[in-house]
Amino acid sequence: MSARDEYRVITSLTNDTIKSVRALHMRKERDLTGAFLAEGLKFIGEALDLGRAPRMLLVGEEARPHPLLDRAKAETRKAGGDIIIVTHAILEKISRRDNPQTVLGVFDQAYAPLDSLDPASAPCWVALEQVRDPGNLGTIIRTADAAGCGGVILIGDCVDPYSVEAVRATMGSVFAVSITRTDPEAFLAWRKTWPGSVVGTRLDATVSHRSAVMQKPSLILMGNEQAGLTDQLAAACDVNVKIPMRGRADSLNLAIATGIMVYAATDEA
Amino acid sequence: MSARDEYRVITSLTNDTIKSVRALHMRKERDLTGAFLAEGLKFIGEALDLGRAPRMLLVGEEARPHPLLDRAKAETRKAGGDIIIVTHAILEKISRRDNPQTVLGVFDQAYAPLDSLDPASAPCWVALEQVRDPGNLGTIIRTADAAGCGGVILIGDCVDPYSVEAVRATMGSVFAVSITRTDPEAFLAWRKTWPGSVVGTRLDATVSHRSAVMQKPSLILMGNEQAGLTDQLAAACDVNVKIPMRGRADSLNLAIATGIMVYAATDEA
Repeated sequence: MSARDEYRVITSLTNDTIKSVRALHMRKERDLTGAFLAEGLKFIGEALDLGRAPRMLLVGEEARPHPLLDRAKAETRKAGGDIIIVTHAILEKISRRDNPQTVLGVFDQAYAPLDSLDPASAPCWVALEQVRDPGNLGTIIRTADAAGCGGVILIGDCVDPYSVEAVRATMGSVFAVSITRTDPEAFLAWRKTWPGSVVGTRLDATVSHRSAVMQKPSLILMGNEQAGLTDQLAAACDVNVKIPMRGRADSLNLAIATGIMVYAATDEA
Repeated sequence: MSARDEYRVITSLTNDTIKSVRALHMRKERDLTGAFLAEGLKFIGEALDLGRAPRMLLVGEEARPHPLLDRAKAETRKAGGDIIIVTHAILEKISRRDNPQTVLGVFDQAYAPLDSLDPASAPCWVALEQVRDPGNLGTIIRTADAAGCGGVILIGDCVDPYSVEAVRATMGSVFAVSITRTDPEAFLAWRKTWPGSVVGTRLDATVSHRSAVMQKPSLILMGNEQAGLTDQLAAACDVNVKIPMRGRADSLNLAIATGIMVYAATDEA
């Protein structure tokens, strides 16, 4: 074994490094460290492709050789990060799963400041007010990526996009999509300079999502899972629309509604 | 207390009735009994509106008086079902949640036979092949309801729509939407009589979901979360389409893709 192949090996669940990684399940620890946990080679490959090397790469003893794993090790080392070999029991503890991924990465969170966004760089953007469910938020980030949206803007008290559950639901898009957080006041001031249509989605709107004229770039505003978009934000929209409810269901899941809206806003047909 | 207000009261977690309700978390027990568990007054009200009284109504000791609860009791009694008062601890055990709903219902499963479906009764139908995730299936049932779809057809080895997790994700639409289960051979034979367009969704399709001509009633086929639609079923479609992937994400969540498809197929604009 050459010097460059020597990694730290940790086998104790009570090791301080492992405890600090496990603590990333808690928002307090994520906020404090500015870090988050991403699981699996797919996620890590996505991060590397976008120039984001992990602070720390945790590799299970049983991890099979893979070119992407070699690349992850090389890029982690080059960026000054730690590479740690861990037991299966540690992977289970960190991921809180019976069948954990064998490669985990600890990454820096990356929020794009509101003032740094270039609305004209994409045909559609998503803003979410007080979104509560991490699975919804992660799925919306994945959907925004797929639809070619410019980014996702979190307004007010939202769930953490860097929670383990939200990150999992992004399927790797957490690295690809610009994420911004702001408060309603800053958003409302910034919104005044928006060059296209700001479109609110509300169950009490009278215009259907398909008949509204949306001028690109569209900024799609979606409200909280229970309460919908607040009056304050709805009033700041150029138009408020509703997705028709034709059966007995009184609403759609938030991520589903967002998916329908962003594809409606970006269709070329 | 008059005779008609006398209910069984159960306080023991090991009571056989409670054990049989808890066992509805297991598919084997659901298959054996043809029953499923629905939680909360919203769900039960939806069932009652659609003429589906519970076999058994479980009411927490702490449940507050509510007109809908009175109605649920009356309709359960009228239909010959049991009404049981239970402790908070029992509700927690049954629901496996810290904050359980205070009213639970045990209902009959209801599958619509393939031959009983009337394609012309709705502009759009959904067929799912080997769907795996209960949250996805429940959300798709809710979305199919919202979009005014005729029903959801499960092809091959699918997750159980009557699992507790799937039912929760339907938000009550499990009672409103026609659900059918079949195997690929029976589906392919039946499909030949379909009067409109049968539309497959595949990542390797070349036609975008918006440019395809869909003749109503549309039957939208969606494949498994990992593998997509099988060649066998894709070959039986009039057209296979893809939802454009414009970013780095290589796919959408299955429920999101289904939502985009069913609203694309039912837009009047």
